[in-house]
Amino acid sequence: MPAAIHAFSFLTAAIAFLFALYLYLWVKKRKVANPEIIRVSKLIKEGAETFMAREYKLLAIFAGVVAIIVLILLPHPIWTGSPVDNIMMALAYIAGTILSAIAGKIGIMVATLSNGRTAEAAAQSLDGAFLTGFRGGAVMGLLVVGCSLLGVSAVLLIAGDATILLGFSFGASSLALFAKAGGGIFTKTADVAADLTGKVELGLAEDDPRNPAVIADNVGDNVGDVAGMGADLFDSNVAAMTSALVIAASLTGTGWAVTEMVFAYAILGLLASLIGIATARVGKDGNPTRALNSSTYVTTALFLVMTALATAFIDGFSWRIWGSSATGLLVGIIIGITTDYFTDDRRPIVKRVAKASASGPAFTILSGTSYGFMSALPAMVGIAVSALVSYKLCEPMGDGFALYGIAMSAVGMLSIVGMIISNDAYGPVVDNARGLAEMGGLGEDAIRTADELDSAGNTVKAVTKGFSIGAAGLTVISLLGAFMAEVNEALAQTGRPLITGFDIMEPTVFFGILIGAGIPALFSAMLILGVDRNAERMVAEVHRQFNTIAGLKEGLATPEYAKCIDIATRGALKELVPAGLTAIIATLLVGFIGGPEAVGGFLLGNITSGLLLALFMSNSGGLWDNSKKYVESGHEGGKGSAAHKAAVIGDTVGDPYKDTAGPSINTQITVVSLTASLFSAIFAAFSIF
Amino acid sequence: MPAAIHAFSFLTAAIAFLFALYLYLWVKKRKVANPEIIRVSKLIKEGAETFMAREYKLLAIFAGVVAIIVLILLPHPIWTGSPVDNIMMALAYIAGTILSAIAGKIGIMVATLSNGRTAEAAAQSLDGAFLTGFRGGAVMGLLVVGCSLLGVSAVLLIAGDATILLGFSFGASSLALFAKAGGGIFTKTADVAADLTGKVELGLAEDDPRNPAVIADNVGDNVGDVAGMGADLFDSNVAAMTSALVIAASLTGTGWAVTEMVFAYAILGLLASLIGIATARVGKDGNPTRALNSSTYVTTALFLVMTALATAFIDGFSWRIWGSSATGLLVGIIIGITTDYFTDDRRPIVKRVAKASASGPAFTILSGTSYGFMSALPAMVGIAVSALVSYKLCEPMGDGFALYGIAMSAVGMLSIVGMIISNDAYGPVVDNARGLAEMGGLGEDAIRTADELDSAGNTVKAVTKGFSIGAAGLTVISLLGAFMAEVNEALAQTGRPLITGFDIMEPTVFFGILIGAGIPALFSAMLILGVDRNAERMVAEVHRQFNTIAGLKEGLATPEYAKCIDIATRGALKELVPAGLTAIIATLLVGFIGGPEAVGGFLLGNITSGLLLALFMSNSGGLWDNSKKYVESGHEGGKGSAAHKAAVIGDTVGDPYKDTAGPSINTQITVVSLTASLFSAIFAAFSIF
Repeated sequence: MPAAIHAFSFLTAAIAFLFALYLYLWVKKRKVANPEIIRVSKLIKEGAETFMAREYKLLAIFAGVVAIIVLILLPHPIWTGSPVDNIMMALAYIAGTILSAIAGKIGIMVATLSNGRTAEAAAQSLDGAFLTGFRGGAVMGLLVVGCSLLGVSAVLLIAGDATILLGFSFGASSLALFAKAGGGIFTKTADVAADLTGKVELGLAEDDPRNPAVIADNVGDNVGDVAGMGADLFDSNVAAMTSALVIAASLTGTGWAVTEMVFAYAILGLLASLIGIATARVGKDGNPTRALNSSTYVTTALFLVMTALATAFIDGFSWRIWGSSATGLLVGIIIGITTDYFTDDRRPIVKRVAKASASGPAFTILSGTSYGFMSALPAMVGIAVSALVSYKLCEPMGDGFALYGIAMSAVGMLSIVGMIISNDAYGPVVDNARGLAEMGGLGEDAIRTADELDSAGNTVKAVTKGFSIGAAGLTVISLLGAFMAEVNEALAQTGRPLITGFDIMEPTVFFGILIGAGIPALFSAMLILGVDRNAERMVAEVHRQFNTIAGLKEGLATPEYAKCIDIATRGALKELVPAGLTAIIATLLVGFIGGPEAVGGFLLGNITSGLLLALFMSNSGGLWDNSKKYVESGHEGGKGSAAHKAAVIGDTVGDPYKDTAGPSINTQITVVSLTASLFSAIFAAFSIF
Repeated sequence: MPAAIHAFSFLTAAIAFLFALYLYLWVKKRKVANPEIIRVSKLIKEGAETFMAREYKLLAIFAGVVAIIVLILLPHPIWTGSPVDNIMMALAYIAGTILSAIAGKIGIMVATLSNGRTAEAAAQSLDGAFLTGFRGGAVMGLLVVGCSLLGVSAVLLIAGDATILLGFSFGASSLALFAKAGGGIFTKTADVAADLTGKVELGLAEDDPRNPAVIADNVGDNVGDVAGMGADLFDSNVAAMTSALVIAASLTGTGWAVTEMVFAYAILGLLASLIGIATARVGKDGNPTRALNSSTYVTTALFLVMTALATAFIDGFSWRIWGSSATGLLVGIIIGITTDYFTDDRRPIVKRVAKASASGPAFTILSGTSYGFMSALPAMVGIAVSALVSYKLCEPMGDGFALYGIAMSAVGMLSIVGMIISNDAYGPVVDNARGLAEMGGLGEDAIRTADELDSAGNTVKAVTKGFSIGAAGLTVISLLGAFMAEVNEALAQTGRPLITGFDIMEPTVFFGILIGAGIPALFSAMLILGVDRNAERMVAEVHRQFNTIAGLKEGLATPEYAKCIDIATRGALKELVPAGLTAIIATLLVGFIGGPEAVGGFLLGNITSGLLLALFMSNSGGLWDNSKKYVESGHEGGKGSAAHKAAVIGDTVGDPYKDTAGPSINTQITVVSLTASLFSAIFAAFSIF
């Protein structure tokens, strides 16, 4: 049976890759003729490639150092046992970074290929433009799920030990940290600098080619939203499968096909996403938002039906596992819908913040912050209920099955991740397409069509963001379970008593909780300040170009776009390293001071405050963005009014919240959880308390 | 011995009251002659009394309802045991509200008596004005500690059962919720409305008597900072003693004077504060900040020495308890110093935020938010370390002593609370005095002196705020211990197995944690939105007055100050009730769904995210306030510059953060913790999971 399930996994991954290839060729066949579009599109592509190349170079150094540490210390100090485990772990780590990097690289390539084609298609028809943008994004979605399934399956098959998967997952997390936080700093540096110099100081329109920061801004959309988000969800997906498999491995002698079940659900989720992607169309009503949402619902329904059938086929009793997985998926969708309530401009909240803006920017900030904080509770209740229900559902199945249930709930929530990424990557493609349609002079109709596609992208983005934070939340809960399993394995080897849990009333646990809760706040503050500093540098560069390049303001000279891209790139990588290291070092410090109990508490505090802050930042940022757009569409005085000025300030504050700090917290949590699991044996052996 | 310690407690409380009376008479003897000062000062006094009367009326209804619920249900349903316990509990609850109310009422009276006298003294000498302001505030400080010591001692003596103290403490918390959150909404409603209409729209100076909202603004300083803060620290102080005494009562047969020790430390803390207050003087260097700080250090040193001597006298071995208490106090002071680092304008952070303001308001908000989030970590580490150290110190003393150690650490941190309140109440008195000096036309010198006193008040306020949040944090940790003790008492009576702790890996605990973590975010959001709505109403009223009262703008007619005070009062009480009820109802829901385990998790989540948000909001608010003042003192372009406009927006955002939501979270945490402890028996008997 194990061999069969791996064969199925490889086969499914191959199908995903083939379908991605088909979509790639389909997109490539779309026509692109406008010379200006070709020129700018090429600039964006080159800029993105420059960033990715530098990022991957820095990552290679980082990953090399970490791989050596892994080799020496993990899963156990190399001098204390078989070095084969350590070599496996180090290789798995490297494989995790490389697979994620490849998915990101190809995703960027296709996304930057689609943007121009989508713009030209928008001059023809809405449906055609939608399909071009969506299929371009879907290549990324399929690659990510394909690579994660292939990687997890291959590592488990070769290593034969689920613990080695933690190394693979840690590799994926390392890359996600760079891609998400680095890409997030890049994109907001460029966005803020372009807006400040272009819109505010010089009164230029969005995407005016005279602005030296404009290409960097477009590049940012791609590296932040396509590559960054893809790496983030690759990370979450691998982490969910890893924790389920690590827990499954500890359920020995149960007679259950627990390991196979994880793969079966992942395979069926991939197939459901594939069908959802294939059937996405803008119908007769011409509503792209509905098209994106309905393919998500198709995917969800297909997944639920197929897994129910598979479960019944494998074993008549394992409907408990199916129930856990279904609960996770449904809660994910409910979180998405709540997010939508707080950030969609057809709902009351966005309108209220727009109205508050009429009283001045302080009220924009206060109301947006308040609703942002409120929006966190429903999602947290959803995650809490999902964990409770899946635990209670699977508890009667035997010892340890309750935690397995939570892990399967996370796997369920992430099952449709292929669809989610496709929806999300669609956003930057059509956003770029809108800019290209303007720069290429494709006319009013094309711009209006592109605008409609872009607006659907923004709406769906809020939902997918809520979804991905929820998924990360459930995943790290099961990682907490995986951490305990790892600690106990280490304790069992030394003959010391096992840990049965982490008691809040234990002072070391409590110590860890409080410190863990402070870390996401510090981490996000460092990223936001990084964006601030980096944007300042880019603003100075734009000023320099306008002052020294003759004819630039008049459009007679070409700006030095590459200089701005260079600043965004260098700054992003420079600012992200201390933030990432702080989180990792804090984990190690807490572990060496308080031992595994303190680390358990640390993870809990980190998850709790991380979820709260990630939801707050993503939602308030989305809320401000849409409030600004709502005012711009003519409400509360429209463009140029006092309310508009206030709403723009809100949007500027929200930018690094929602695109840099908020989504990076996910990754920070996963990185910290995996660091803890990997070092569990060492914490169990050496600690002060 | 028990009788003796109660006698000592009563005697010490009496000394505190007599000394407060002496200070009151001293302040009353200061001369106040300027007719304008007398008139305005009377308006402020009447406004404050109007608010307090309405607040206490609403509180009486609320407390009446709660007292009936307590009578019927607590400590056990009245039909299941002796009704005497229930009657005691209900009476203790009422006593808690009344004692806190009296302290608040008298404190307000003295503070509004001192403001005019301080203004006139400022025309004579710095030292005299300082003493008038400080001693006016100190009356409140002494009353609060006197009342809390008297109340706790009397309730324990009469009831003979530490559990009944929970009712007393719950009464104090109910009042604090009204006083702190209600006063906080009042003060910021008036502040924001006065600034928006006066400064922004009409270009009037701060405290211009033509502004109808100006008296409400001055009233707000008193009801928010004097009465609200006093009630908050009364609540924390009672809660710290209560939890230490509840835990002490569970340490039966230890041969230790654990109960006496709690009182001894509280008595010595009061005496140390009294000496600190008596010796406060502005020395030859004429630096009021140093005067306030040095009396705090004197108090701290005295407390440490006296308790060391007392401990040696009571028992040679209990230095472990002394160590816990000393750790708590020192960590409190360290938290205060960290807060100072993030909010004092002689330190780099305030300057950096001022510099960011030059790039526009979005950067003021982003940098202030980031540093606010960063500032939470050191305080959280401090609390974590203090809990860990005191636990480990007292663990060797026997079963249950570890938790007692944490409780004594909180008692130690709060020992100097008399001094802290005096410092804090000094702020609004001199703030009012500054306004009165201006309105009374006392001349440049008096205003400059008052300014100097005011600035010292602002600096010290940041420190005392950090201190009070830290104290609340440690207190609720020990309340968590008290909650477990209560649950086990209930379980023991039903013969069910006792709880040994709250395991994170239990799904009900985890369920509680996530929901508990969301509550402070929701609670503070509701308060902030309440301030927004209420300020809108007051702005409309000010507009109405300027439009309908002839000659108002020219200073020929008197505005209807009372109308604004009325709006602030009604609005504050209306907005605060739903926020308070939400927190209480959430606790009950979680308890009835998940049982005591879920409530334990709920409390932990609530403490963790509550501390994080309270620290973030208080510190970022203080940071913005001082950045604005720093710009106004001539930096980054000074008054009227773009940086100044941005800094004003930051300050407006920070106002409800630091004076409404941030400090109210403390109270919310205590209310929730006490609700949990009181209902512990009921949760143990009825719950779904």
